Amino acid sequence: MAVLVIGHMNPDTDSITAAIAVADLKSKLGVEAKAVAQGAVNPESKFVLDKFGLAAPEVVTSVEGQKLILVDTTERAQLPADLDKAEILGVVDHHKLGDVTTPAPLEMWVWPVGCTGTVIKAMYDFFKVEIPKGIAGAMMCAILSDTVMFKSPTCTPEDKKAVEALAKIAGVSDYMALGIEMFKVKSAVAGTPMRELVFRDYKDFDMGGTKLGICQLEVVDLSILDPFKDQLFEEIKKVKAEKGNNGVYLMLTDIIKEGTEMLFIADDPSVLKKAYNVEPGEKSVWLPGVLSRKKQVVPPFEKVLKG
Amino acid sequence: MAVLVIGHMNPDTDSITAAIAVADLKSKLGVEAKAVAQGAVNPESKFVLDKFGLAAPEVVTSVEGQKLILVDTTERAQLPADLDKAEILGVVDHHKLGDVTTPAPLEMWVWPVGCTGTVIKAMYDFFKVEIPKGIAGAMMCAILSDTVMFKSPTCTPEDKKAVEALAKIAGVSDYMALGIEMFKVKSAVAGTPMRELVFRDYKDFDMGGTKLGICQLEVVDLSILDPFKDQLFEEIKKVKAEKGNNGVYLMLTDIIKEGTEMLFIADDPSVLKKAYNVEPGEKSVWLPGVLSRKKQVVPPFEKVLKG
Repeated sequence: MAVLVIGHMNPDTDSITAAIAVADLKSKLGVEAKAVAQGAVNPESKFVLDKFGLAAPEVVTSVEGQKLILVDTTERAQLPADLDKAEILGVVDHHKLGDVTTPAPLEMWVWPVGCTGTVIKAMYDFFKVEIPKGIAGAMMCAILSDTVMFKSPTCTPEDKKAVEALAKIAGVSDYMALGIEMFKVKSAVAGTPMRELVFRDYKDFDMGGTKLGICQLEVVDLSILDPFKDQLFEEIKKVKAEKGNNGVYLMLTDIIKEGTEMLFIADDPSVLKKAYNVEPGEKSVWLPGVLSRKKQVVPPFEKVLKG
Repeated sequence: MAVLVIGHMNPDTDSITAAIAVADLKSKLGVEAKAVAQGAVNPESKFVLDKFGLAAPEVVTSVEGQKLILVDTTERAQLPADLDKAEILGVVDHHKLGDVTTPAPLEMWVWPVGCTGTVIKAMYDFFKVEIPKGIAGAMMCAILSDTVMFKSPTCTPEDKKAVEALAKIAGVSDYMALGIEMFKVKSAVAGTPMRELVFRDYKDFDMGGTKLGICQLEVVDLSILDPFKDQLFEEIKKVKAEKGNNGVYLMLTDIIKEGTEMLFIADDPSVLKKAYNVEPGEKSVWLPGVLSRKKQVVPPFEKVLKG
């Protein structure tokens, strides 16, 4: 039975390409492994997979009885509900350490870098396995996406080095041009149902008993979203009620202006005030310089809610 | 402020030497780091440190306001009580993933091998840093100790390869002879207070709400312990009451006969029966082939208590 390599719910490009890459690496190391995903790929990921001739991973939402390698998360809230009925053999990630535990020793490759792809590049090197051209290209795009083309505060020198090396393997000469093309695909929201936009990059967190959804849309120009803000707000309101969350926060991130308009609906809106020392409006607040959920939203929220 | 590299309570040789080695490696990578320990070194560790001219780490029991790298554990029950007031930057380990979580991304090197020393050997290689002779010798001894000189089911080919390589660096020609010498030191129990024997290698676990202490004495001949078994039983009884645990299990492991006499005092002794399909005596049970707490005791206990 193949080990399933699986990322978080509402998979982004890193979660998808990390599953594909780790399954490839493990297979070449003699462990039968298969990339799967908890949902269909988003338009950005589809663009990347098509560009490099890769197939989208099969969608799997129950993992009972399976052996797993987790990629891009260790948060139970972002993993299948029957996770406890599976066996976790490994983790490859670049986030904070979440609440997953295991009954037996496992293999973990976790680095504080901008993208799981950067960790996987090092794993291929460590095990002296050649990275297939297409997978290298997809991992490169994942790093460009996760680091907002090196602008995010999550970006490290390792991420840049990995992109340079992967671009060579993939035969991509102008990777920044490809990055812009990819972000334009990501920015195209017209005609997309609001629900899909909210869940395109949505993650649930349990912070000391407070249940939060934090989602993000990254666009090359925030004004693209002006016609949709009211509808997006109504949608996160619905999501909050359906999930019984204490709050849902939608980051509308302008990757050129480098800041985030945070739409929010929360039982206790003072969290935002305490986290950023700002006076939030009724439904939204502008957070200059904020690009990263992982580095600039989750830690201050945790500090307020757990600290 | 130096990053503190710290292992579990009641430190064993792996916890001590891993702290020393990771602090050395991190310092050479430009991160000021210092090895510390949650207690004084045990006789085996003292033998190893003396043999290779290393100093015992400073004892630290409060970590408030410190930056930490954890070695050899991710279990909160085995870490300082004020762990939440420290910042965890990294983990180097070879156990199951415990209940430590972090608010921010971190660096984790965790492999399912017999000893943290084996992981650290790979880290030195990965970062192309030379291992100092004395540290290599101490890491080698830690691997020999943790794997019971390659006999434990936790032992992997990587552990053996690491010992071979470290022995060369340390200039030790007959590492098995040194291993026997080390286990003889470990076996010397006469004249030692019972309390010290119980806590020489003691770990607390929280398994789905059931609080257990599991401790281990490894000896080259179980008959060495015959005169002390009654006193050891009285001691674990006291420890159980003091800690308010649901059970305390003391593994008396014969590394030559390759088995463990488990002394126990437990609210629910049927755990042993369910875990091993044996009929335990009133105070003890013989478990043939059982050498490893990590691989042969913790997982079956977790399965019974959490499953």
